[in-house]
Amino acid sequence: MSTTSDIDVVLREVGPRDGLQGLTTFFPTAEKLAWIQAERDAGVREIEVTSLVPAHIVPQFADAAEVVRGSLAMDGLTVVALVPNLKGAQRAIELGVHKIDFVMSVSRTHNLKNVRREREESIAEFERIAELVAAVPVERRPKLAGGLSSGLGCGYEGDVPLDDVRLCAAALAQAGADEILVADTVGRADPRKVEAAFRAVFAEVGDIPVGAHFHDTRGLGLANVLAALNVGVRYFDASLAGLGGCQFVPAATGNVVMDDLCFMLDSMGLRTGIDLDRLLAVREVIERTLGATQMQGAVAKAGLPLHYVPAAGRNT
Amino acid sequence: MSTTSDIDVVLREVGPRDGLQGLTTFFPTAEKLAWIQAERDAGVREIEVTSLVPAHIVPQFADAAEVVRGSLAMDGLTVVALVPNLKGAQRAIELGVHKIDFVMSVSRTHNLKNVRREREESIAEFERIAELVAAVPVERRPKLAGGLSSGLGCGYEGDVPLDDVRLCAAALAQAGADEILVADTVGRADPRKVEAAFRAVFAEVGDIPVGAHFHDTRGLGLANVLAALNVGVRYFDASLAGLGGCQFVPAATGNVVMDDLCFMLDSMGLRTGIDLDRLLAVREVIERTLGATQMQGAVAKAGLPLHYVPAAGRNT
Repeated sequence: MSTTSDIDVVLREVGPRDGLQGLTTFFPTAEKLAWIQAERDAGVREIEVTSLVPAHIVPQFADAAEVVRGSLAMDGLTVVALVPNLKGAQRAIELGVHKIDFVMSVSRTHNLKNVRREREESIAEFERIAELVAAVPVERRPKLAGGLSSGLGCGYEGDVPLDDVRLCAAALAQAGADEILVADTVGRADPRKVEAAFRAVFAEVGDIPVGAHFHDTRGLGLANVLAALNVGVRYFDASLAGLGGCQFVPAATGNVVMDDLCFMLDSMGLRTGIDLDRLLAVREVIERTLGATQMQGAVAKAGLPLHYVPAAGRNT
Repeated sequence: MSTTSDIDVVLREVGPRDGLQGLTTFFPTAEKLAWIQAERDAGVREIEVTSLVPAHIVPQFADAAEVVRGSLAMDGLTVVALVPNLKGAQRAIELGVHKIDFVMSVSRTHNLKNVRREREESIAEFERIAELVAAVPVERRPKLAGGLSSGLGCGYEGDVPLDDVRLCAAALAQAGADEILVADTVGRADPRKVEAAFRAVFAEVGDIPVGAHFHDTRGLGLANVLAALNVGVRYFDASLAGLGGCQFVPAATGNVVMDDLCFMLDSMGLRTGIDLDRLLAVREVIERTLGATQMQGAVAKAGLPLHYVPAAGRNT
């Protein structure tokens, strides 16, 4: 999640992981890599390329090692893998990913359903992962992100207490997270909840980066991004064409649409390092495998505005 | 646009006008009135029910008089009609509407295409309308709203100068507008443009209400609402199921989705006076005439969140 001086906001593509994990159709490995390559070429600098879960649990990720290796061969890309446990983290380290995303849920019920652990056990597992990572020689040591799913509400429990978000974030930061990600897994957030949650997390974790992972379930995805931006968040997950969901969460729908999010930020004059025209063209890679029906995206449909000048090219 | 103490934000339904004007299918008069009645019953207090344009120009509004009369028979509803010129305003006064929406475009090209006048001529026409309205006995005098379409960008010209928005708003306020509406007719706005435009208009028109009319062309509708809220706007136009567009503007798509907007505000704890469940049920009235294919709305698809408590029922 390193920003460079030519970027104001970092957008992280999570589609190859979050966008595909709920699909029963296997997205061919070569097409996953074509997608990742094309987005990197459009300027996306960080991509969550796969999930290191057992293949019998999510067959979509049976090719995880191959996808990681192919992605690591691409220049200038931070390659991220999601891991649910220590075993996944061991694999991630062996494969040489740049960043490990550990995920636990702020909601007890969702955590039990998703990773079959109590939250305290997940935190203990994260501590073991952090120790494992710390033992890796520094030149090939991955970054470690602590992800909090259902951080803005739960599909089983409803609202989650703000204190639970704070405490989980604090525990992961304390254990050695290099960054914290707060996720609105089922699209329950609204701009006020977002402001409150991120303010609370910022106050708790000090100066490590805090990222936001929003779903667009009830249409508030971009409004929630704006609210998070307004309280200082500069790292956002999104999925090209809004693919995504969670098979363990009722009614969870797609991630925030990467292309629309990128347009919003760019239009506001915030540089993402991403070429919008090239990013929109990457949709073809998804379409040739999945077809257009499950693809979202208003900018793709309407086109960029007449005489649109990208943020990076403005004289301001 | 009167707020009462039990309401924080006023939502105005514009679907029966903006949502239908681009349709070639005639929406039956009885169904228009059923829609208006059902939304009023859900708590919507102001509805733009029709446009007083000649029937040969927009056949959809051939039943304007009947729709206005039917709407005026409904208790507690502010009945609004759009008018493009003095003749329309005369009809509006004769029919006894509660509010006249005069519309001109901040963009010269769009104004010429839409109403075939120079902007200066539109302002002069508004002055004549204001005089006409002022001559109506006070007990049945309609409110007069000055609407600025393409106020945040134009489908023909691209960006519009902020000074043009300011000057048009000032001219209409000076002429006697009771309120100003700024419209993002082609969905070109972004949150920063919205903040700048509404700040400029507020500074210009003093203390009359300023409303926002956004289209969701590029997915930023609700984010733009949030930006407008943040600079003090408390009046928003929207269209149930996101119907809408403008037949004279290339690529113009639907208005902000009323149901999603109402959910966002309510979720933030802002009271709109609208019952969300009843509002969502009104979609059936549209669906039985138009079918579901052109209807938008994420909340309608996902449902309200589990254990959702409406703003009006919270103990905060």
